[in-house]
Amino acid sequence: MAIFTKQLITKSSARRQLIDLTSEVTGFVRETRVREGICVVSVPHATAALIVNEHEQGLLRDILAKIEAVFPASAQYEHNAIDDNADAHIAAAFLGHNRAFPVSGGKMIRGTWQNLFLVELDGPRSRREVVVQVLGDT
Amino acid sequence: MAIFTKQLITKSSARRQLIDLTSEVTGFVRETRVREGICVVSVPHATAALIVNEHEQGLLRDILAKIEAVFPASAQYEHNAIDDNADAHIAAAFLGHNRAFPVSGGKMIRGTWQNLFLVELDGPRSRREVVVQVLGDT
Amino acid sequence: MAIFTKQLITKSSARRQLIDLTSEVTGFVRETRVREGICVVSVPHATAALIVNEHEQGLLRDILAKIEAVFPASAQYEHNAIDDNADAHIAAAFLGHNRAFPVSGGKMIRGTWQNLFLVELDGPRSRREVVVQVLGDT
Repeated sequence: MAIFTKQLITKSSARRQLIDLTSEVTGFVRETRVREGICVVSVPHATAALIVNEHEQGLLRDILAKIEAVFPASAQYEHNAIDDNADAHIAAAFLGHNRAFPVSGGKMIRGTWQNLFLVELDGPRSRREVVVQVLGDT
Repeated sequence: MAIFTKQLITKSSARRQLIDLTSEVTGFVRETRVREGICVVSVPHATAALIVNEHEQGLLRDILAKIEAVFPASAQYEHNAIDDNADAHIAAAFLGHNRAFPVSGGKMIRGTWQNLFLVELDGPRSRREVVVQVLGDT
Repeated sequence: MAIFTKQLITKSSARRQLIDLTSEVTGFVRETRVREGICVVSVPHATAALIVNEHEQGLLRDILAKIEAVFPASAQYEHNAIDDNADAHIAAAFLGHNRAFPVSGGKMIRGTWQNLFLVELDGPRSRREVVVQVLGDT
């Protein structure tokens, strides 16, 4: 069994934004030639997260609206006494910073409507990192 | 280190439902004879999720009630202009499509009250897939 | 590729509490001498969870306040007819019992503000277990 690691670099252009990483991640899985294994994706940031769902523009706005409803930016937070992004931290903690996919038959296994998104929660940022790892047998 | 993959097939009989997969998953872990490793379970669907908790009927209804409270089916969603299941997509994105367990001493390590459930969010469906992977040393 | 497993034992002193496990987990990763791999952390409890975020006292109180807002302890739950901790179970199911980090160059890869916390949801407890696994190449 072997392990392959790749760092993706992206950026964001709004405070909250969903950035589709699917083609970069599935492309890397293909490049590794791993046939059976897992693909683990992580963001090393405390104000960003990863989610998996359909890339449909209305739905992406619905997801961002739900993030605002559950983690409103303008509510009272103690952390905002020292910074101005408590809502971003809390949403990141709840949504989670990593997701995993099976790899089988040389392909990343995902549903037709399962795209992988970086969730920017405190942008815009000129640089966001994503770590993609593939573990398995080639 | 070796990797073993199994696809479980199940179905659902209600719009929202919790389907206990524990015995099938722990049974597969045993069959693999992996002694030390991890078990990663994933659903390749954008309107289903996985959670881990106690199999007690009242609690299962409480969990479904909380899903309805946080992701109400009848709220206004943009995605519903093209489909009628935005709440299911959003809940799936928040809850997550994969969970992992340690495997040690040849057994899947879980708490007494930790059962694994497929969360159906847009049923009933005649077919739902779950991918179980065990990575480790036999 | 090798796998290393360690059980951490901790305790809690309040009903809800965030317990920082970062130094114990990163220390174990170092001890394993794994250079490239993944670190998977799991709690084998149905009323505890794991989250990743900044260790700032105000933010930790904000996170606990958000848990109370989304999963209020005093609401009506069916599970409370047989126990008194439905809110803890539901929060644990939503937040999730495991998190993973990349290991690269012999170090656990995490953001500057990404600490790992056990989320106690039904304490105080004299004993809480956490399973840390490192898979990879030494």
